[in-house]
Amino acid sequence: MGGAMNQGARVVDLIVRKRSGGRLGRAEIESLVSGYSAGTIPDYQMAALLMAVYFQGMSKRETVDLTRAMLDSGCRLDLAEVSGPAIDKHSTGGVGDKVSIILAPLVAACGVRVPMISGRGLAHTGGTLDKLEAIPGLKVFLSEKRFSRVLRRVGFVISGQSSRWVPADGLLYALRDVTGTVECVPLIVSSILSKKLASGVGGLVLDIKVGLGGFSRTAAEARTLANGLLEVAEHWRLPTTALLTRMDQPLGRAVGNAPEIVECIQALHGRWDRDLQAVTFALGAEMLILAGLARSPRAAYRRLEEALASGRALAKFEAFVRAQGGDPRVAEDPSRLPTAPVRGSIRAPRSGFVHGLNAYEIGMAAARLGAGREKVTDDVHPAVGLWLLKKVGERVGKGETMAQLLGTSRTDVRGAAEIVSGAFRIGPARKPEGRMVLARFHNRSAERRRSSVA
Amino acid sequence: MGGAMNQGARVVDLIVRKRSGGRLGRAEIESLVSGYSAGTIPDYQMAALLMAVYFQGMSKRETVDLTRAMLDSGCRLDLAEVSGPAIDKHSTGGVGDKVSIILAPLVAACGVRVPMISGRGLAHTGGTLDKLEAIPGLKVFLSEKRFSRVLRRVGFVISGQSSRWVPADGLLYALRDVTGTVECVPLIVSSILSKKLASGVGGLVLDIKVGLGGFSRTAAEARTLANGLLEVAEHWRLPTTALLTRMDQPLGRAVGNAPEIVECIQALHGRWDRDLQAVTFALGAEMLILAGLARSPRAAYRRLEEALASGRALAKFEAFVRAQGGDPRVAEDPSRLPTAPVRGSIRAPRSGFVHGLNAYEIGMAAARLGAGREKVTDDVHPAVGLWLLKKVGERVGKGETMAQLLGTSRTDVRGAAEIVSGAFRIGPARKPEGRMVLARFHNRSAERRRSSVA
Repeated sequence: MGGAMNQGARVVDLIVRKRSGGRLGRAEIESLVSGYSAGTIPDYQMAALLMAVYFQGMSKRETVDLTRAMLDSGCRLDLAEVSGPAIDKHSTGGVGDKVSIILAPLVAACGVRVPMISGRGLAHTGGTLDKLEAIPGLKVFLSEKRFSRVLRRVGFVISGQSSRWVPADGLLYALRDVTGTVECVPLIVSSILSKKLASGVGGLVLDIKVGLGGFSRTAAEARTLANGLLEVAEHWRLPTTALLTRMDQPLGRAVGNAPEIVECIQALHGRWDRDLQAVTFALGAEMLILAGLARSPRAAYRRLEEALASGRALAKFEAFVRAQGGDPRVAEDPSRLPTAPVRGSIRAPRSGFVHGLNAYEIGMAAARLGAGREKVTDDVHPAVGLWLLKKVGERVGKGETMAQLLGTSRTDVRGAAEIVSGAFRIGPARKPEGRMVLARFHNRSAERRRSSVA
Repeated sequence: MGGAMNQGARVVDLIVRKRSGGRLGRAEIESLVSGYSAGTIPDYQMAALLMAVYFQGMSKRETVDLTRAMLDSGCRLDLAEVSGPAIDKHSTGGVGDKVSIILAPLVAACGVRVPMISGRGLAHTGGTLDKLEAIPGLKVFLSEKRFSRVLRRVGFVISGQSSRWVPADGLLYALRDVTGTVECVPLIVSSILSKKLASGVGGLVLDIKVGLGGFSRTAAEARTLANGLLEVAEHWRLPTTALLTRMDQPLGRAVGNAPEIVECIQALHGRWDRDLQAVTFALGAEMLILAGLARSPRAAYRRLEEALASGRALAKFEAFVRAQGGDPRVAEDPSRLPTAPVRGSIRAPRSGFVHGLNAYEIGMAAARLGAGREKVTDDVHPAVGLWLLKKVGERVGKGETMAQLLGTSRTDVRGAAEIVSGAFRIGPARKPEGRMVLARFHNRSAERRRSSVA
C-alpha cells in the first residue's frame, strides 16, 4: 500500500470517474487505448468503460483525444505520391446504399482522387466490400503498395481496412459490436475519423442517413452525429461537409450484392432512379468543391453530368475492376455476375399508390435471403437479394408485381416474401416522395476551402 | 441466417435491451448467470451488461430472478442438524466495524445460532475475516463439515465463502470489483441475499451504515438499499430487519485488525464505548426477536446484558477461537496478539471539543499503515492500525494525545499521521454525538414472526 497504484486499480478508477460523469484526460485516454491495444487492459474493463461512455458521453476534448490515440495506434498512409486532391466519402450506411460504387468512378473521372476505405455489411445494411466481391475475381483487401498503385493509375481505389491502419479501431469496433455499444456518438466519431485521418485525405464528405433504414432514426440524432464529426475533423483542419439524406425507403431499386452491382452499372450507363441519382450527385458536388475542382454546386453538377454522359465514369469503373483483379467485362455485360437459382415475386393486393416501403424491413428481407450477416464471421451469398419494381409515390394495379426476390432456397424466398409484403404500404392517393437531401453542414476548414476556390 | 440466433447474438440483444431501459425475463437472467458461470458468456459481455444495469437499474422482479439464478448456481448449506433458530447479521461495512465479532458470541450465548459468512476488507473498510486472522492460528476458511460442526458445538461460526456456495456471486463480485460496478442496488441485493439464502438461515438482520465512512453516504441512499433488500428477502419469506446506523466517525476506538480484536475482547469483558455497544445491542435485540427468544426490545436487552455480565458471551468467544484453530488464551490475554514495531501519536493542536472525526479518512489512514487493501490480492498486516483516544463530543486539551498509530515503518506512520490529523475537527463548544440507530425497517415476514412471538 501507499506506493504507486497498479494499472488494474488505475483503470477501475477511470471507469468509475467516467461512470460518475467525470472527464478523462489526454494521457489517460492514450494509456487506455495503448494498454487495450497491447492487451494489458482486459476486454472486460474496456467493455465497462465503453458502456459508461455510452451513458455519460464524452466532451469534444475527450473525443479528440480518443481519435488521436486511435490514430497513433497504427501507421498512416502516405498520399504524397498521389497527384491531385484526395477526397473521401463516408456513409453511415443504409439499405440499398450503393452510392460509393457509382460515386467514386464518377468523381475520379472529374479529377478527384478517392482513396476509399470501406467495410462489410452488418444487420440490415449491406457493405460496399460485400457488394464488390460479387464481381468475379475482384479483390477488396489490397496491400498498401497495391492500394497506392490502383489509386495512382485509376484515380480511385476501394479497399478493406488493413490491420496496420488504426488497429485500435479494429479491436474497439469488434468489442463494441458484441457489447451493445455501437450506437454512441463519440465512439462513432473517433472510429470514422481516426481511419479517415490515417488515410491522409485532404477532405471528407459525410452521408448521414436519417430514417427507418438508416443509422440515425431522427434528424435530431443525425445532426448530433454530424456536429460531432465536423468539430473533431476541424481539430485536424480537415475540410468536412456532411449531408443528411433520407433513408425511409431503400435507395434505388436493387438490394443485395450482385443486384446492386447491376444497378450501379446501369447508373454508370445513365439509367438510374431519381433518388439514387440525387444522393450521388449531391455528394459528388461536395467532393468536387472540397477538391477545388468546382466553384459552385451548379458547376459541379455540370462536370458530373458530363463525366457520366461521356462514358468516362463507366471507363473509370472498368479500369478499377481490372486493377483490383476483377472481370472488367461486367461493365458492359452484367449477366456475368452470379445469379440466384430460386426466384419469387410479390404482387399488389389492391390498386393504389405506394405510400411507404420500410427500408429496415427490406434490409431484413435481404438478410433473410442470405445477402446480409448477423455477425462479422457470417458468409454472405453474392447473388441473392431483391428488386423493387414499385417505390414510394408510384402507382400499382391490383396483382401487379411490386418486387422480385432472388434466393438460394424456396424456404428463404417464402420467408423473405412475407417480410417484403409487410414492408409495402399502399394508399388511395399519390403521395410525393420528398427531397433526398434534408440538410447540409460543414466545418470552418470546408468553408475556408470553398471561399478560396470561389 | 434465418435460423436460431447464436448465443453471442442473443447476449448482445439482452445488453442492448437493458441499455435501452427494457427488462430482462426470468429465463434470460437464468441463462445469463448460468452461461457466465459456465464460461460460455465472456467477461466483456457481462461487464457491459453490469454497467448497463448500473445506469438503468433492475425491477424487483428482475432482482428476484437474478438472486434466484445466483442461488441456483451452487449448493445450499443444510442447517437441519442444527438445533435452534439460525439468524445471521450482515453489515454493509464501515470503519472500525468490529460488531460481528462481539455480536455473534453475545447472541449465541442467548441461544441464537449464527452461521456467519463473512468477507475480506477492501478500500477504507476492514473485513471481519482479516480481523479474525490476527488471532494466531485461527482458520477463516472452513470445510462445510467443519463449518457445521463449529456451529453445532459453539452456537456460532464465522467463515469465508466456499467456492461451492453461490459460485456465480464470487465470479460476478470479482468482475464488478474491477469494472466499477460495485455501487449498484440490485447487484448488491442479489449478492447479499443469494449468499444468505444459500446459508439456510431463518432470519436476517441488516446493518446499513450511513455516513462518510459507510457504503451509503446519505440516509436516502441507505433507505433505497434497505427497501431493495427487504422486498427481495420477502419473496423468499425470509424474516428480515434492517437498521440504518451512523458511520460518520469510526465505530469504537480501534481501527485495524489486531487492535480491533483487542477492543472486541475488552467489550466481551464489559469495557466498551457507548457507540459500539449501542449498535451491537440494537442488532442483537433484533436477532433475538427474529429468533423468537425475546418478545420485546426491552426483554432482548436484558438477556444480552445478562449474557455479557455473566461471562457467557466471552466463554462463547473463547470456544469459537478454539474450535476454529486459534489460540483461545487471547480471550484473557490480548497481548498474545501480534504487535507493531513502530508507534506514533497525534496531539491536539489546541484545546476544545472534537466536533468531527472523518471515518473515511481514518479508514484510509489505517490502509496507509497496511491494515487495508486496494485490491483483493493485496496482503494486510495484522498488527498495524490506530487507537482513537478522543472521539466526537469529547474534550481535548492542547498537546493531549488524540490518537495512537501502530505501523511497520516510520514512513507509513508519518504518512498516516498526516491523514489522521486532518480527520479531526476541533471546535470550541461541546457537540453531542447523536443517536446511533437512525431508522429501523422490517419486511412482512419479520412482522409476522414478531407477532407470533408477542
